[in-house]
Amino acid sequence: MTFADYVDLRRAEIEAALNGFLPAPPDVPAVVADAMRYSLMAGGKRLRPLLVLAGAEGVARTVGGSEAAARAAAMPAACALEMIHTYSLIHDDLPAMDDDDLRRGRPTSHVVYGEGLAILAGDGLQAEAFSLLAREPQGHHPVLMTRKLRTLALIAGAAGPAGMVGGQAIDLAAVSPAPGVNAVALDPAGLQAMHLRKTGALIRAAVVAGAVMAGADERLTAAVDEYGKEIGLAFQIVDDILDVEGAAATLGKTAGKDQVAGKPTYPAFFGLDQARTLAAGCHTRARQALDRAGLLESRLDEIATWIIKRDK
Amino acid sequence: MTFADYVDLRRAEIEAALNGFLPAPPDVPAVVADAMRYSLMAGGKRLRPLLVLAGAEGVARTVGGSEAAARAAAMPAACALEMIHTYSLIHDDLPAMDDDDLRRGRPTSHVVYGEGLAILAGDGLQAEAFSLLAREPQGHHPVLMTRKLRTLALIAGAAGPAGMVGGQAIDLAAVSPAPGVNAVALDPAGLQAMHLRKTGALIRAAVVAGAVMAGADERLTAAVDEYGKEIGLAFQIVDDILDVEGAAATLGKTAGKDQVAGKPTYPAFFGLDQARTLAAGCHTRARQALDRAGLLESRLDEIATWIIKRDK
Repeated sequence: MTFADYVDLRRAEIEAALNGFLPAPPDVPAVVADAMRYSLMAGGKRLRPLLVLAGAEGVARTVGGSEAAARAAAMPAACALEMIHTYSLIHDDLPAMDDDDLRRGRPTSHVVYGEGLAILAGDGLQAEAFSLLAREPQGHHPVLMTRKLRTLALIAGAAGPAGMVGGQAIDLAAVSPAPGVNAVALDPAGLQAMHLRKTGALIRAAVVAGAVMAGADERLTAAVDEYGKEIGLAFQIVDDILDVEGAAATLGKTAGKDQVAGKPTYPAFFGLDQARTLAAGCHTRARQALDRAGLLESRLDEIATWIIKRDK
Repeated sequence: MTFADYVDLRRAEIEAALNGFLPAPPDVPAVVADAMRYSLMAGGKRLRPLLVLAGAEGVARTVGGSEAAARAAAMPAACALEMIHTYSLIHDDLPAMDDDDLRRGRPTSHVVYGEGLAILAGDGLQAEAFSLLAREPQGHHPVLMTRKLRTLALIAGAAGPAGMVGGQAIDLAAVSPAPGVNAVALDPAGLQAMHLRKTGALIRAAVVAGAVMAGADERLTAAVDEYGKEIGLAFQIVDDILDVEGAAATLGKTAGKDQVAGKPTYPAFFGLDQARTLAAGCHTRARQALDRAGLLESRLDEIATWIIKRDK
């Protein structure tokens, strides 16, 4: 199967699972169910769920387990991570944060539903992610429960103030702090520290969650963690490059916006060529981590290449 | 020990535990750690954690376990529920929601930190609550893991769109929907349905979480669930009554605000006297539920009375 076909196949499975896990009336009031669905089912790359499934498959092959069973065990984590990612986009787009009107080619949540309901849709998606992780996959086998609790702890840690929320707070302080508060200047090290939390933590948690649910030992877990860290950073560097190069039509969001907002970015600090070199360095280290774990033949390698070469 | 002394003692334990569980630099950027601490450590009744601990104690006595061990096992759930409650207050007070400047006698989070960071502090507290529940209490005994996953699922469900967030969305649609959208009128049944989710779900989850962590069987769990449902509703009816009667000094928040905002309330629908009668009915049914479970001698009975008689 080509990589493009593989991604299409897994994405279709992810869309179906997300749709099945989304709560609906009468359990949930229609007003908030609609707003959650609007943002969650708006497409997007589904990078984090793909990483969960590819991590689970790769580890299953290495430890001699069933790839299909590993994917099934990891699917709730795949969907939970996409719910958390989506909630972060809804809140990030709010007027008090990045104030974006366009996301994935469509009007943002607060434009459609108003700010109050957009905040609640985000809050609801976060809660639903953890509800899903606690419920699924079902079973009381001690091995399964141990894996579920580890996955829960690592995803909650990555989503919280030590991870994504903390990175977002650093970003906010650097770009659009409260009225009357001066922006905090970031140097290149500060920029990297921000991105390791803001986008890196969740990407890293995705591939590790897949590995844990498939039964990775300490050595395998450490290797995929290293891989996740490197591709998470590469993802952000490429994002910054695309913001300079890209057109609104390709990205589905307002391009050139970082520059206008005076955001610290990799191209702003290093220039485009050096930024590309930095991304290539992450790619190399990610592949070395896969190699150490015997995972170079897995789809994780192709995903790393895709992250570097993507044009949106 | 008198009930007042009991509450003081448990509150001191809860404050110490919250303080210990709150993440701090360098794990977490100072800017978001400060904002989380500002709201979480601002006092308040600590009703939900008290219910967790009282539920755990009562069940431990009934099933013949150690009350102290049950409290220790339940303390992470007690703190997690207070984190979730606090995040909901931060978001509820935002300009896009209830637009409140004063909470627990102090300026609200967005007044102090700006809207963006207030949203993030709330998001961070929610994630931290689930991180805490997944981590603590530590141990891999199957009985403990089963209880932790049940507690996680019930708290996440109560906090999410089927519970608190859903109730908040109904409230928002009834009072301050998006610009250009008409408010949805609530009848008394709709008001009750809203409150059962908005405040009731978390109060109910609190007492059930305590019971589950202490090893309650199905019958005991059902009884404390019934108790929690009734006192949750009573809590809201009394809140509405206090809003009419109370002074800003006593409540630590802007009194009479519901009336000004044209919010649907129990006194508005039924008058003050009938609202008091409704609260008394909840109290009676809560006590009957305790009686069925042999829990009438527990602190849960005194907490129910306190909820009815409180003046703030």
